This record gives sequence, structure tokens and C-alpha cells, in this order.
Amino acid sequence: MPVRGPIVTLTTDFGTRDYYVAAMKAVLLRDCPEVRLIDVTHDIPRHDILCGSITLERAVDGFLPGTVHLVVVDPGVGTDRRILVVELNRQTIVCPDNGLITWAGRRLGPGQVYELTWRPRSGSNTFHGRDVMAPAAAMIARGDDILAIARQIDDPILLDVAPARSPAEGARVIHIDAFGNATTNMGRELAEQPGRGFRIGDKDIGPLDRTYADVPPGTALALIGSSGLLEIAVRDGSAADQLGLKVGDVVAVE
Amino acid sequence: MPVRGPIVTLTTDFGTRDYYVAAMKAVLLRDCPEVRLIDVTHDIPRHDILCGSITLERAVDGFLPGTVHLVVVDPGVGTDRRILVVELNRQTIVCPDNGLITWAGRRLGPGQVYELTWRPRSGSNTFHGRDVMAPAAAMIARGDDILAIARQIDDPILLDVAPARSPAEGARVIHIDAFGNATTNMGRELAEQPGRGFRIGDKDIGPLDRTYADVPPGTALALIGSSGLLEIAVRDGSAADQLGLKVGDVVAVE
Amino acid sequence: MPVRGPIVTLTTDFGTRDYYVAAMKAVLLRDCPEVRLIDVTHDIPRHDILCGSITLERAVDGFLPGTVHLVVVDPGVGTDRRILVVELNRQTIVCPDNGLITWAGRRLGPGQVYELTWRPRSGSNTFHGRDVMAPAAAMIARGDDILAIARQIDDPILLDVAPARSPAEGARVIHIDAFGNATTNMGRELAEQPGRGFRIGDKDIGPLDRTYADVPPGTALALIGSSGLLEIAVRDGSAADQLGLKVGDVVAVE
Repeated sequence: MPVRGPIVTLTTDFGTRDYYVAAMKAVLLRDCPEVRLIDVTHDIPRHDILCGSITLERAVDGFLPGTVHLVVVDPGVGTDRRILVVELNRQTIVCPDNGLITWAGRRLGPGQVYELTWRPRSGSNTFHGRDVMAPAAAMIARGDDILAIARQIDDPILLDVAPARSPAEGARVIHIDAFGNATTNMGRELAEQPGRGFRIGDKDIGPLDRTYADVPPGTALALIGSSGLLEIAVRDGSAADQLGLKVGDVVAVE
Repeated sequence: MPVRGPIVTLTTDFGTRDYYVAAMKAVLLRDCPEVRLIDVTHDIPRHDILCGSITLERAVDGFLPGTVHLVVVDPGVGTDRRILVVELNRQTIVCPDNGLITWAGRRLGPGQVYELTWRPRSGSNTFHGRDVMAPAAAMIARGDDILAIARQIDDPILLDVAPARSPAEGARVIHIDAFGNATTNMGRELAEQPGRGFRIGDKDIGPLDRTYADVPPGTALALIGSSGLLEIAVRDGSAADQLGLKVGDVVAVE
Repeated sequence: MPVRGPIVTLTTDFGTRDYYVAAMKAVLLRDCPEVRLIDVTHDIPRHDILCGSITLERAVDGFLPGTVHLVVVDPGVGTDRRILVVELNRQTIVCPDNGLITWAGRRLGPGQVYELTWRPRSGSNTFHGRDVMAPAAAMIARGDDILAIARQIDDPILLDVAPARSPAEGARVIHIDAFGNATTNMGRELAEQPGRGFRIGDKDIGPLDRTYADVPPGTALALIGSSGLLEIAVRDGSAADQLGLKVGDVVAVE
């Protein structure tokens, strides 16, 4: 019996006020008693699949091979939308088929996609995170064969978000963090070209800086963030507030 | 020595900004080094014993036999109010004697109720969660005999909340979750009778639906929630906000 | 192989909405697979080093010998500010050199202070919590020799906060908790002298009470809080709101 149990991470839009997160953990501990549970976040804005997708990619980039990621942002709960099991970056994701896997697939993937065919004998119509997805994540964490509970598919639902392909199209804001930093879809290799400068509407941000402290407090800057993507920030402040940035906005590259 | 340590869950109104929750965990790890800790929530509204009681019942319903639940919503801290140890549903609860065990007892119980007689040699007058209840939970988790630290009683304090007995008295709202869904005290067996319809004041909610997606966005519905109780919800919205629902309100059953 | 892994606690100002906390945990689990992770809080107000310092002292006071505390409140991230490894109270702290260790050192210390000389081969310029401090904490947790990754120093940066030395100078508020209780820098031994009374501006608080329930609801009181320090509270209310208390204010001792 191994001393180190398998790791399951949890990412949801449930918040932390109610019992819902613990309900999933109770099931995971019941069905995989050795499991070690790591919360990624439960504060994904309600039903914000893009935010869930960006967050999931970070987890799949950071955790060790063998980790299972349970992601429940599920506006379609109770309908017949599919539930996915995705093998990607030597880890496994369990989530509803609504686009959540898009960004991990585009950055690290695409991986191998399965539709969960296993269903519990009984369960609620409103909490598939507890009744369907947590048991599936536990089965995978304890080493069950995926093909015993799922079948391969090739048409998962994908969001309209992709890494920037050329400077001409600019960088698109894909995520605003709690500090107001704006992450874009432009990777280091495109953004770091010599001579590059960045602009948001009329506002010139200048060339890439290395870190926040390279500019005076309150000043906007462009840098490569900790995810390896172009980020717009304000030192000791909020780029989202100060520059009015929101997801979908374009940062011009010059 | 077992590889899987005992599980202790924590439910409090402490919030997560301060050191208080970690202080209890430090004691649990000191007195029961194999313990595995699961947060249920620390965002019970301050001193809201009913909310704590509803949340505790969910945990006692979900976790495995042998789990210990430490629940600290304790407006009477420092007074001589009793501290309870309750065996219920093959799990053990440690909490102040102020009504917290009511809903678990009414739904899953009543169980066996003890008053904690053990007290630490020294400790604060303001943090019995750390100084009295966490050590007691650790003793139980590591397998100490309850009768060595507590004596049986039969008069725990109970709240005025009970499962609905007949449709005529209606269903009473007992909990509003973070999404604004309103859970009532009416079980599936009463609410699911054919021909039943639900009404809140002048507002007709209609018969039971199966899940949120059965109605258009923004529409109120009645359904059996994931706790097995009648719930009033609004698809993609907040029933609490849209219908003005609060704890104690009555849903008429027709 | 031990059944009980080493404990690493985490204290940050990252909040819990984003992936940042889990990113540090992924590194800790990668570099010290047996680690057990305990969150102290991630809701230190952004860049509030004093609040981080007060919180850290509580953790170092409460946890067992051998615990490693990773504390990341780091406005200077990306600059050449030092990173500290501090042995104190038979535990180890990893944090930026910006004053975070002050209060633990003044109350429990001063301990042995090292500057981390280890650096990763690559890493971001904006997330040293993940790229520098989490790997260092993991190395210490798994038992690496501190002198292989750090060198002893004697000039860590310290904040201007210290335990009260005499009643004449009064007690200074050093922390306001989420309930609005105000902790001061005056220890039990000074505050408990017979005949002592306390005053905030024009407002007489009277002598020490034992616990909240010693006064009527809504009433201000002085007591020894669970940290062993003089605390100003309001029963079932907020001393910060009701008395206008903030960090730095002086409580007169008479």
C-alpha cells in the first residue's frame, strides 16, 4: 500500500460558504480512501467557463504526472450534456463537456478525450459534481481502467479562445486576476521580440518590462507573467481598474 | 500504524482571514498526528447556529463512519454552557451545546449525547474551539474512550426546527445557499406526491421540476435538491433575491 | 519511510480566487512528496507586512517543532531583496526579507537567521513564491541541510513593532481581526496587574474582564485574548467599528 496517496485537485464555482465542496470531498474519500485533496479555487465566477478553463490550464501545467483534476463549472447540470475524462500532459481531467478543457488543450494538449459512460445507480439531478464526477475522479485516482467507465470521442465542445498567432492581430485579454492583472493569449516567444511595444486604445504601455518593480508605483507595464504569457499590470495597483481592461479586450502590438 | 489517518472535519463562523482556523488545526495535528483535516466551511454567518446546524447535517450525511466533526459556532464561549460529544450516524460530533446538533439529530439521529467533562489544565477564556473542543476531537479521532472524557446526558439544547409533517402546514425555508437557492424542511416523500403544486405568497411556482434546466433562465422552480429536501430555485439566478425569500418563510403546498 | 509527512503551512496575500496558491502547493508536492499542507490564510491584506508578521507569530506559537512556514507577502518580488530562512521556536520560516519575521522574533525569537543563496536555474520575475520560496521550503521540509542553500546573516529587516515595556507608554493596537477585535502589543503580565483600567481617548473601558460574556451585548471590554495579549473587544459586535479603532492606536493604561 503506497504511503503517498494519489492527488485530486478541485476547481469549482461553488464558493466556500456552503457544504457543496465538502460533499465532493466526502465522496472522493469514500471511493478512494488514500486520496490527497488540493483545492485550486472554488471562487470561479458562477458559470464562467472561460475563467474555469484558464485556471485549469494552470493546474495541468503545474501538477505532477498522475494528478487528477476535478473541475465543476456546470451551468448544464441535470441536462444530457456529456461529462468528459481527458488525458493531457500525463494527467487526467474530469469535467462537464462545455468548453472547460479548451485552454489546457490549446496550450498543453490536445490529449485524449473520452466521454464518461458510467453513471451512478441513483443520484440527484442538480449535483452531478458530487454524484457523477467525484465518483469518476475517485475511480481514476485509484487506478481503474478509463475504458471501463468511458469511451473515446473526438468532438469535445471548445471555446473560441486560442493562443495569438501573429503580432498583427494583437494580444487578447483572457483572464483578470484578483489583483487586476490582465493575462493575454500571447506567448513569450511572440511578445519578447526586440523592438516590440504595447498599446491599449490610446494608452501607450511601452516595451516589455521584466518585473513590477521596474516601474514607479501606479504605473502600467507589460511583462511576461508567471504563466509565460504577456500580462498587463499596474505596479501596486489594478490594471483592470486603472486601464478599464476586461476579458476580450485587445492589446495592440507595435 | 494505519496508512489512512482518521478524518476530522471543521465547520466554524471564524472566516478565513485570521489565524483562528489554523490554530485549531495545529492542536489537532499535535494531539492526533495521523489526522486528516477537511474544511467544511468557515463562513457560517457569525453566531448563526441554525445555519451551522443545517450545514452539519449535510456533513454527517455525507462522510464515512468514523469521521469526527468539529463544529464551532459559539456565541457563549467563556460561559459555563456545556460542550457536547454526540455519536450519530456512526460518526462523532464535538460542538457547544447551543442547538447545533438539532438538524442532524432530527434527520439522522437522535444518536447518543454526551457532555464533555474533560477540561485542559490551562487555556483561554475566549477560544474554547482551540483549547477545549479541538483537543477533545483529537482524542476521539485517535480512539480514546468517550466515557473517559464525557458523561451521557439526555437534555441537549435543541432549536425549533423540524422536518415538515404534513402538506397542510407548508414547507418552511431553513437555509439559503450562496447562489440564493432556498432549502426547505420538506422531504422528498411529502413533496413528490402527484398533483402537488407550490406557492410563495401570491407567486405560483407550479409543480415539481426535475432540474434547473427544465425551466427558462430567470424562472422560479420547485425541485428536490441534492439534500433530498424541497428547494425553491431560480435558473441562473437567485431565488432569495428574486422572490424575497428568507429563512423562516413558508412555501404553501397545494 | 515515515507515515506522517512533514508539515508546511502557507500564509499569503494572494486571495483564493486565482491559481497562485495551488501553484505553490504543486511545487511543494513535487519537491517533497510526503508533505502535508496547512493553509494559515491567503487573505492577508495585499502587501500588509505587519498583518503578515502578526499572523506568522501565531502560527509559530501554535505548530509543532519541525513545522515549516512559507509566508509570501512580497511587494518587492522581482527585485534583489533577500529571501530569508529563519529557525525559531524549533520551526523554520521561509519568507522575503521585508520585516515579516519581526513579531515572531520579538515574541518567540530571535532565532537563527539565514539568507537563501539557492536560486532556480530558471523561473519567473513575478512569482518567487512559486519559483524560489516554495522549492526552498520543500528542501527544508524534506530534511536538506540549511547551510547547503543559505548562509547565516545578522541584519534582517525589522518592523517598528515591539511588545509594550511599561504601562506608562500604553498598549498599541497591532492587529484587527475579522470580527473587529483589536489585539495590542501588551502581554498578560503587564495588563493583569491589580487595579489596572483601560481607556481609548475619552472612552473608559474599565478593568480587565475575563471573557466576552462578562459584559452585556454591544458593550466594549478589555480582556486577555487567545494570543495572551491585551485585546479590546465588543461583545457580539465590532470594537474596530464601534470605537473607531485601527492599527497603531494607543490604549491608555491607568
